[in-house]
Amino acid sequence: MDVEERLARIGLSAVVEGGTTELGATATRFGAEEVWERVVGGAAGEGLAVKAGRVEPAAMLEAAAAHGIRFVVPGDREWPDGLAGLDSCEPVRALGGSPIGLWVRGEGCLAGLAGSSVAIVGARAATAYGETVAADLGAELSQRGVCVISGGAYGIDAAAHRGALSVGGATAIFLAGGVDQPYPAAHRQLFGAAAEKGVVVSEVPPGAHPTRMRFLARNRLIAATAGATVLVEAAVRSGARNTASWASSLQRVVMAVPGPVTSALSFTPHRLIREGEAVLVTNAAEVLELLPGLRAPSPEPVPAGSPIDELNPNQLLVMEELPARGGRSVGELAVASGLPVGVCLAIVGELERQGHAVLRADGLWHLQRPVAQRNPSP
Amino acid sequence: MDVEERLARIGLSAVVEGGTTELGATATRFGAEEVWERVVGGAAGEGLAVKAGRVEPAAMLEAAAAHGIRFVVPGDREWPDGLAGLDSCEPVRALGGSPIGLWVRGEGCLAGLAGSSVAIVGARAATAYGETVAADLGAELSQRGVCVISGGAYGIDAAAHRGALSVGGATAIFLAGGVDQPYPAAHRQLFGAAAEKGVVVSEVPPGAHPTRMRFLARNRLIAATAGATVLVEAAVRSGARNTASWASSLQRVVMAVPGPVTSALSFTPHRLIREGEAVLVTNAAEVLELLPGLRAPSPEPVPAGSPIDELNPNQLLVMEELPARGGRSVGELAVASGLPVGVCLAIVGELERQGHAVLRADGLWHLQRPVAQRNPSP
Repeated sequence: MDVEERLARIGLSAVVEGGTTELGATATRFGAEEVWERVVGGAAGEGLAVKAGRVEPAAMLEAAAAHGIRFVVPGDREWPDGLAGLDSCEPVRALGGSPIGLWVRGEGCLAGLAGSSVAIVGARAATAYGETVAADLGAELSQRGVCVISGGAYGIDAAAHRGALSVGGATAIFLAGGVDQPYPAAHRQLFGAAAEKGVVVSEVPPGAHPTRMRFLARNRLIAATAGATVLVEAAVRSGARNTASWASSLQRVVMAVPGPVTSALSFTPHRLIREGEAVLVTNAAEVLELLPGLRAPSPEPVPAGSPIDELNPNQLLVMEELPARGGRSVGELAVASGLPVGVCLAIVGELERQGHAVLRADGLWHLQRPVAQRNPSP
Repeated sequence: MDVEERLARIGLSAVVEGGTTELGATATRFGAEEVWERVVGGAAGEGLAVKAGRVEPAAMLEAAAAHGIRFVVPGDREWPDGLAGLDSCEPVRALGGSPIGLWVRGEGCLAGLAGSSVAIVGARAATAYGETVAADLGAELSQRGVCVISGGAYGIDAAAHRGALSVGGATAIFLAGGVDQPYPAAHRQLFGAAAEKGVVVSEVPPGAHPTRMRFLARNRLIAATAGATVLVEAAVRSGARNTASWASSLQRVVMAVPGPVTSALSFTPHRLIREGEAVLVTNAAEVLELLPGLRAPSPEPVPAGSPIDELNPNQLLVMEELPARGGRSVGELAVASGLPVGVCLAIVGELERQGHAVLRADGLWHLQRPVAQRNPSP
């Protein structure tokens, strides 16, 4: 993308609220310069024109760079593929669409991190149980090379980031305000630590403050950037529920960690599992099983031909739909077996561990062929 | 059933192990007298013939009656309908089939209790969390007129029975040994309390001791008698897992209560939920929603026409399959929507609460018809 386009996007990011539907798609279609000139010319109203007249994109870029902040746009090596899904996704509360650009701070490559990533989100007022689970998940996923993405908030978000950092992993923090505006302020050091190997990201320019709308708009970026979203503790009303909804709308796998039914913070994870919107996960290995394009190494490969009479009815359903030749996607298996995609994903993973299913390099599944007997008994 | 048939079944119950497949079905088909005469005559082997020769069914019945114990057979008013399902169900570990008869102690009517019942099963070495949840479920279900069925063991079983008894409800205890043989002995008083309004039941005659096989055979009777089975805490290997498998094989709804992922006793409930074999439940109201033929009273009816744009994708899937006229069963909705039956059950319950779905008296569901506006605005 040429310099003028990039500067126009900086201008747009400074005057148009993040999460304005169609903004990213329109800029990509007609050119950001064209859109920016129209905004400056008053086509989007006098208010925006006045505001735009005061914006100096080149100066913004220079000031940001002086603080180690870059502006990433579609086409850049660092632009995450997943964001494209936002343009074909229904708006939620009038927010949606791909961002016009992203302000990024940190030594990590956002697209590289996003390519193998999981969002871990949940309650700010989390319990010790939730924080322990989030930190353990963050650490174990990080050890397997998965980037933990979250919102840097108190509670589950921070525990997940810290879990990743505790094993020297990279983590990505998406903020609702500018990446130079630590929010909460108590997490300034956390954000600094994340920037050492990972990234701190925002749709709004440096200096911008977080607002309620910006939190909601930010949630869509987490869901779209991450390969899957895991919910750990969330009460009946929760921002994490909003992130999970975005992930569902984007056809990403949503997972939820259960907890004691006596805790109000178990409400949303249990509800999503109960209604089939999320798959129950209890540890990092189960998260990895469900992560597209990533496979947990089988702890010990089971020889082909282990007894199938111990399979449960759902496992048999899926196994019957596995082709001996060629391959089928998990989505195809779900349609054929009548089971939800999440359940199918869990089952093929289990069948693989038991030596019945094989995942091909292209992501399709087929039946494990029986091992030919070398010395058949006479 | 005439006296000779009944006495022949008593004889058979004394010499043939509970859970012997085909026994109940064969006795029903050819007559128990015929089968008993053949056993006495040596057709089933010398060992059984010698044993049968020493059995005096009439004396057994008399002795049992003196201790308040009756013998219930198919055709009796007290015989639970659900047991019939066992004859068409695949054996598990070579055990299966409907029982030849049941020895029953207590003031309750077994069939009456079974008609509105839930099995609550789980670990013997339960945690305080599991026992609290089981006791609460037992009490709340009992208050809604549901009989709690379990195995009278330490831990979850006892907590569930005690929950029911704590609110003056009836509970049914299925033992692996004779109903006059308290096992564990520490539960003698619990069994006595259960017999006051409920029943204590066994497939093996008074005086018989519990054995490992009899525990497994007993589990099938719990699963078959109860309308649904709820699992609360069970480790990776657990008798409760066996009961849940029987319930699945019998096409009954299996539910499981989640718990902390940090507890080994959450393993089996989480696994069953994850693999789609059990529906996640967190309280008695959710159990009632899934119980065939029983409906939880809606806490507050929502007027028809509440916004449907808040429905999640799975809810929309099910709603699209609800007919405006006539009705569809939950099974039909599951096939049509591609969702598992348990998930469908949870969703129609939720749609009912939101005023979108209506359950007809015959158990079929249809769409809530929009309320006609009395005073349409001009």
